[in-house]
Formats: sequence, C-alpha cells, structure tokens
Amino acid sequence: MAVFNRGPLQTAAALCVIILLTFYFMIFHNFPGELTKMLSTTQKLSCPHGSELLKDHLPKDQSEELLERRAKEFQKQKKRATSELSRLLLAMPNSPLQYPIQGFKVRPLTSTLIPGLALHAGQRSSYKVALDVSKGVLTTEIPAEGVKVQGDGKTRLIVESRSLETLNDLLANVTYTSTVYHIHTGDLATFQFEEHEAMFPITIKQPHLPVLYDMGTDINSHVTITTKTFLRYQQLKVLLRSIRRFYSNIKVIIADDSFEPEHITGAHVEQYFMPPAQGWFAGRNLAVSQVTTKYFLWVDDDFLFTVKTKIEKLVEVMEANPELDMVGGTVDGNQFYFSLLYEEGEEKEGGCLYRKSKERFNSLPGYPQCFLANGVVNFFLARTDAVQKVGFDPKLKRVAHSEFFMDGLGSLLVATCNHVSIGHQPHGVNYKDKARYNNFRNPAENYTEFSFQLHFFKNHLKCIKYG
Amino acid sequence: MAVFNRGPLQTAAALCVIILLTFYFMIFHNFPGELTKMLSTTQKLSCPHGSELLKDHLPKDQSEELLERRAKEFQKQKKRATSELSRLLLAMPNSPLQYPIQGFKVRPLTSTLIPGLALHAGQRSSYKVALDVSKGVLTTEIPAEGVKVQGDGKTRLIVESRSLETLNDLLANVTYTSTVYHIHTGDLATFQFEEHEAMFPITIKQPHLPVLYDMGTDINSHVTITTKTFLRYQQLKVLLRSIRRFYSNIKVIIADDSFEPEHITGAHVEQYFMPPAQGWFAGRNLAVSQVTTKYFLWVDDDFLFTVKTKIEKLVEVMEANPELDMVGGTVDGNQFYFSLLYEEGEEKEGGCLYRKSKERFNSLPGYPQCFLANGVVNFFLARTDAVQKVGFDPKLKRVAHSEFFMDGLGSLLVATCNHVSIGHQPHGVNYKDKARYNNFRNPAENYTEFSFQLHFFKNHLKCIKYG
Repeated sequence: MAVFNRGPLQTAAALCVIILLTFYFMIFHNFPGELTKMLSTTQKLSCPHGSELLKDHLPKDQSEELLERRAKEFQKQKKRATSELSRLLLAMPNSPLQYPIQGFKVRPLTSTLIPGLALHAGQRSSYKVALDVSKGVLTTEIPAEGVKVQGDGKTRLIVESRSLETLNDLLANVTYTSTVYHIHTGDLATFQFEEHEAMFPITIKQPHLPVLYDMGTDINSHVTITTKTFLRYQQLKVLLRSIRRFYSNIKVIIADDSFEPEHITGAHVEQYFMPPAQGWFAGRNLAVSQVTTKYFLWVDDDFLFTVKTKIEKLVEVMEANPELDMVGGTVDGNQFYFSLLYEEGEEKEGGCLYRKSKERFNSLPGYPQCFLANGVVNFFLARTDAVQKVGFDPKLKRVAHSEFFMDGLGSLLVATCNHVSIGHQPHGVNYKDKARYNNFRNPAENYTEFSFQLHFFKNHLKCIKYG
Repeated sequence: MAVFNRGPLQTAAALCVIILLTFYFMIFHNFPGELTKMLSTTQKLSCPHGSELLKDHLPKDQSEELLERRAKEFQKQKKRATSELSRLLLAMPNSPLQYPIQGFKVRPLTSTLIPGLALHAGQRSSYKVALDVSKGVLTTEIPAEGVKVQGDGKTRLIVESRSLETLNDLLANVTYTSTVYHIHTGDLATFQFEEHEAMFPITIKQPHLPVLYDMGTDINSHVTITTKTFLRYQQLKVLLRSIRRFYSNIKVIIADDSFEPEHITGAHVEQYFMPPAQGWFAGRNLAVSQVTTKYFLWVDDDFLFTVKTKIEKLVEVMEANPELDMVGGTVDGNQFYFSLLYEEGEEKEGGCLYRKSKERFNSLPGYPQCFLANGVVNFFLARTDAVQKVGFDPKLKRVAHSEFFMDGLGSLLVATCNHVSIGHQPHGVNYKDKARYNNFRNPAENYTEFSFQLHFFKNHLKCIKYG
C-alpha cells in the first residue's frame, strides 16, 4: 500500500484511520451477535483431557482425502439449512416503521397479506416508503386517489402519498407471493423510510399433512415389542415365553441374522430373516421399520419380562408428555443413562463430543422418578416416528449403543425412569452357539478403528471422550 | 350489566363506548394477522367437486369414537410444535427500545449473552427498564456505580440508572439461561420502558451432531439399488441381469415376502425375507432401512435397465442441488408426476387434499429438463436419510403409491426429470404365480375402504380428490 511509503508519523495516522474505520463498521454495521458468531465458528477446539483424537485413527494414506471429502459433504449439508431464518436481526430504536418480526409464514407460490406494515412518522408534506424482497414479489390493491405506487408485482415496491393515512391504508394491503416452490426456506424483506431501515423475515413453508397414529383401545394397539436376535434362539424363546406370561396378544417383531435360521412359531410374532451376520444396528433398523403402532418397546433377546415389566406405565409417561420421544427403564436394577456434551467446533476440524455417564437433567413434571437425559439403556419405549427419523445406522455391525443417541442428539427428547424394569437372563449359561456368538460380539481391534473413522466422517468430529 | 338499566340514550352511548373500546383493542393490541389466523382456523372447508368424503367410509358404529380419538391425537401432536416461535409479533414504531428480532438462539441450560439490547430514549433524570422471560433466568455482571439492579438470576430483571450510557453498558451484558432441558423450544422475552413494550423470541435448541454420508469414490459408494419382490422371481432375475449389464458391482437390496422364498445368489445382493404377503410398503420400508449409501435408487421388480438408465445423471442433479431429496425419472417413456394441493381445514373436521396429476412447479436451476413436483413415478433416486425420515407406512399392504408422498408433503423436496429412463418388462407375459400375484395386486373393495379410513385418521383429512 502506497501509504506505507511515507514517514512513520503518516503511517501511524493512516493505521489509526484504518483501525477507526474498522471499529465504525464493526459497531454500526456488524451487529455484536454476528461478530460473536463469526468469532466462534473460526475458533479451533481443544479436546478435553482423555479424548480420542479421531484423525489419528484414519488410514494414513487416505487422511487428506477423507478430510477434504468430509469438508465438501459438510458444506453441502449446510446448504440444506435456510440461512435467512437464522440470521441475527435487530429492531432499531426510534424508527417510525412498524412491521412483523416473527410469525409471518406463507405457503409457497401463494399470495399472503403482510401483517402489521405501517408508517408512523411525524408531519411531512409527502411520505415515501420502499419495500424490497428477493424470493418473491409484492402486490397491492389498486391504489386509491392520492397515492403513487411503483413496482406492483415486482421485488421492489415504492409507495408515495401526501396523506399518511392513505399510505397506511395501502400498506395494510400489500401481499407477498414467493416465486419459487420450496418446502422450507426464508426471505428477508427490507422496509425503508428516509434514513430508517428495517429488515424482517418471511418464512416460506409448505404445510405438512399430519401423520397420526390411531392408538386404538388396548396395549396391543399402542405398543409393538421389537428385538434383534443372532445365534441365541434359546434365550429368544425364554424371552418370548416371558412376554406371553403378561401380554398374550402383543405383537413381537424379530429381526434375525442367524446363520442357520429357525422359524419361531406362535401368533402375533413376525420374524424377518436377514443375510447372516448382517449386523446389530441393521437388524434394529429393520425391526423398527416394520412397526405399525405409535410406540414400540425395545428389548434385547436375552431379557426377561417380570411382573414389574409394566409397559402401560411407560405408555402413561409418554402420553402425559407428548413432546417426549423415548423413555428408558431399568434392566435388572441397572438404570444406565448418559448425557452428550457437544461443541460444534470449527468447520475444517470438526467438533468435540463427551459422553458423560450418569448425567441427567431436570425431572418430568408429575413424574419425579423420571429425568431427561441424552441416552438410556436398551430397554425403552419410544415413538416409532421419532426413532425412524433418526435411524439405527446399518453400518454398525457389531457392538454399538451410544451411536444411536449421538445421531439423535437434538432430535430426540429422551427420559429415564426407575419405576419400570425388565429382567436379564443369566450371563454365564452355556448354549449351542455361545463361542460363535462371542466371536462376533467381542469386536476385533479393527472394529474400534472403524468406529472412530465412522464418527470422524459421519458426525464431523475432531474428538470423542467416553466417560 | 347495570349500565343497561338506564334510559335508551345512555344504553346507546354505553354500547358505543363498548364497541369503540373493542375496535381500539382490535386495532392497537390485536394484530391483524392474529385475527386473520384466528378466523381461518375456525373456518370449515367445503370439499372440491369430485372429492371423497372420508367420514362416509368409517364403520358406522365406530364413527363418533374415531372422530374423538383422532381429535385427541391431533391435540397431542400439536403440543410437539413450539407455539412461542410461531406467534405473530410486531415491532412497534417510535419505540426507544432496541432488541433482537430473529437469530437469538441459545443452547439449553447454557448462559448466552442477549445481543443488541439497548435503550435510546430522550433526556430523563432517571431511566428504568424491565426484562421478563418465562423459561429461563436473566443474569447480569456486577453492576457498576450508579446503576441499580433487581432480580439478578430471576425471570424479571429491572435495571435503573441516572445515566443512559451506564444503563446501556449493563444491558449489553445481560445473559439468558434456560432452566429446563429441551431440544427445541422457545421463550418470549418482554422488554419494557415507560409505556413502550417489545416482545422478542428466544430459540432454545440443542445443537445436532451432523450426520453425513461418505460418498466415496465411485457410483457403488454413492448409490444402492432397492426393490421389493413378491411371487415374481422370473421378473426379478431379468431385472438383476439387466442391472449387472451396466453396473457390475452396485449393491442391490431385495425385500422379499413371497410364499415360497427362493434364494437369489450373486455378489453384492442382499435379500431379506419377510413374513409371506406382509406387504408392499412394509417391504419398501424394510429395503430402505438397510441402505448404507447417501442415495438409493428405487426400482420395481419388473423394471429393466437399459443404456439410458444412467444413475450417474440422477446423482449429478442431486449433488448440484443439495436441498433436493428425490429426483424421479421416466419408466418406459412415462414421466408420471403430480402435485398435492392441501388445505389444513378446521381442527375437528380435518383438511382437504387434492392430488393433481401432471401438475408441477418451477424447473431446477441449470436443469431445464427437471421440475419440482410433490410426487413422482416409482423410479427415483433419493437421499436415504430424507426418505427414512418420512417412511413407507407398513400398514399399506397392497396397492399404494401417492400415500408415501402425502406423508412426505412439506418434508421432501421432489423433482422430476425426463433425461434418465428405465424400461418396463412386458406386462402380458405368463409366469408361475401370475394368478396368485394378481389376486393380491388387485385390491378387494374393503382395501379401498381401509385406505380411506387410514387417510381419515392418519392424515387428519376430511376429503380426498384424486385427479
């Protein structure tokens, strides 16, 4: 820069001006929130002590390529969120403009009246306002005498009148019509009078058809029991007999990837046969995909129903708290639950995740024995639609549990209660395929590596800590 | 009311006052949008000519009970949407208050600075503002000299100072902390100074972990082919051979509910066996639940890959438009697509749905041969995660197609293109189980009744029109 070729005093003065200009723009044009947001997304995270640094588990020769591919995928994913509706906007003080700040929602391609647009300015000989949009057009009724309109049917509408009342009459009848079909996006409108300018959001949304479940009249129409089995028919049959002691007609869905499949007979049992050893989460996703009731109860194939396994009590908790997606119970007295502390981190590096065992949040209103958490044990009642929306990742073939709750973080409202329990069949018992089962169940070292690599890419993580 | 005991003149005057007061509140306190919204949700819909009135298809003896159960379920579903964030709010003119109107998002239970809070009032001897919230508490830094703070750490914060500058310094450091864990809800803050009051939203959201797919390096890691088969092994094998002509290593997932299952051999084929005749949509949901790639290509078991079946071209459209969830092609030259016109209707009666064939919206940027629509033919490439979030309803055992797109309305951004096609195997050909297949395929009359009953409840509809 030419300015730096002069003497030191002039350089200092020039630098001073540059700094002052920067501050001016920061203060008057760059809202503090935007600035904070800008700063936070560029901040690299330092992983908590005891974390696994996931980049270290990538195959050395593919490390760069994976980082790049992940960055590209992350960018594409971000384009699916509509930025206009998350942009920080402030209402400026002492502005004569009145406008909607929240709640102005329109259907795509449909003309909708903009609510609450008005000008409350002091005495003028003439009043002129402008309204600008990007993803739609503005139309107004045929102007009465004494008001001039420019840009009717376009993206920029200018209205002028000598009478404030006439101007406001017109402003009360401006409609917005989005011009491109979309199911969920946003536009930003700019409303301007003299030196005053206001920006407000317009939500463009295709209304959903409701998707409701008929709860019917009894427990069998409220809940389906789901399980996955592999090489443990002995345990599975014990589980089924224990279910039938208390629930003779409830439907049981079994996802089965055993090597030598055995047909389970009996009414209200649906058995699905998968390619052998296809995997744990593939089987879970399959079982849930077949549920036709509002809720399903997940059980492992070596659990045991007891007199305390009262599904109705879990249904009661869910029905009393319609925002809840899942409620976990206890297995053989063990009420396992955890929270997931997640920092988003910087775009290129990824975030930090800390699974904290025995961490929970507030209790449910009316249910002091139930608390919110981010993950629970494998005995839970859940909303079928909510769990299907998250899904059990079929890439997880062997040991997996928290991964489901990680994928569901922010999507599932999860609670843990201690007043409903299920038993667990004894662990040490010998059975036909025990050795073969354990061979699959105890993962090889490369499975742990695979798991870290999966979290690295799929969940855009820098590090994980299991606590 | 005592006022009506007086003479007619006084009564008229009193009535006049009451009417004027009502108008005052309507104009200055009841926003026009709110009023319009209030009116629209109580308006009963009249069904378009040619619609099926769904209530007529309910079993007579259960009609009242079903209406009531549906209303209850609908109410519970509504509680899952957070009303604070959709409430219509206006920014009042000529207010000395400055505050955020959009974009103030906080993590649950986490202290976050409220951006942009300030007072720009004229000369006063003293300035006093109040800030109220419901789902959290407000805290501020230790006040400097000359400012009085009440309610630090509570839901109502009152700040008072003789100096506007000192007051604003404090306002710039007020933090909000939500007090109840939630994954997505909202609070409304009220900011008040003298007779001025402003209401602004606070979004409380648990950030999601990203869930990305590794696209890998070739078509086999981008796409899985999925299909459902029933009693048509002859056609299925012809389809598979045609796939292998062009894509030798692409994975094919087959959901099979045939009566006498036959194992399909070959590399990269996964076959899942269901209870016999379990059903069409159950099979579709199963197949999709097993996909591990970002995209899947749906084909029917009697389709035929040709040289024009270029999956890469469909992937290209999807990758260029990351907001897109699905892109349909043509089957034997038939480019079927439709739009779904949906009116929400009144709470007790339900909405109206009109499936309009050959209706589409705008074209995709850069792809003039592709248009947005609400539903397409059964040959499409789709995002696995988006389709899993909607799901194929396993209650639909026989004929079904539009139902998936109805459940997905507002959730799936769907396009139809004409530059990628697939063939259809000849219809008239004889095969082993043809009669038995047709018996299932051509639905009994009670299936149509069942279908209407399902739409009545599940989709909260009053009427459907198929055009």
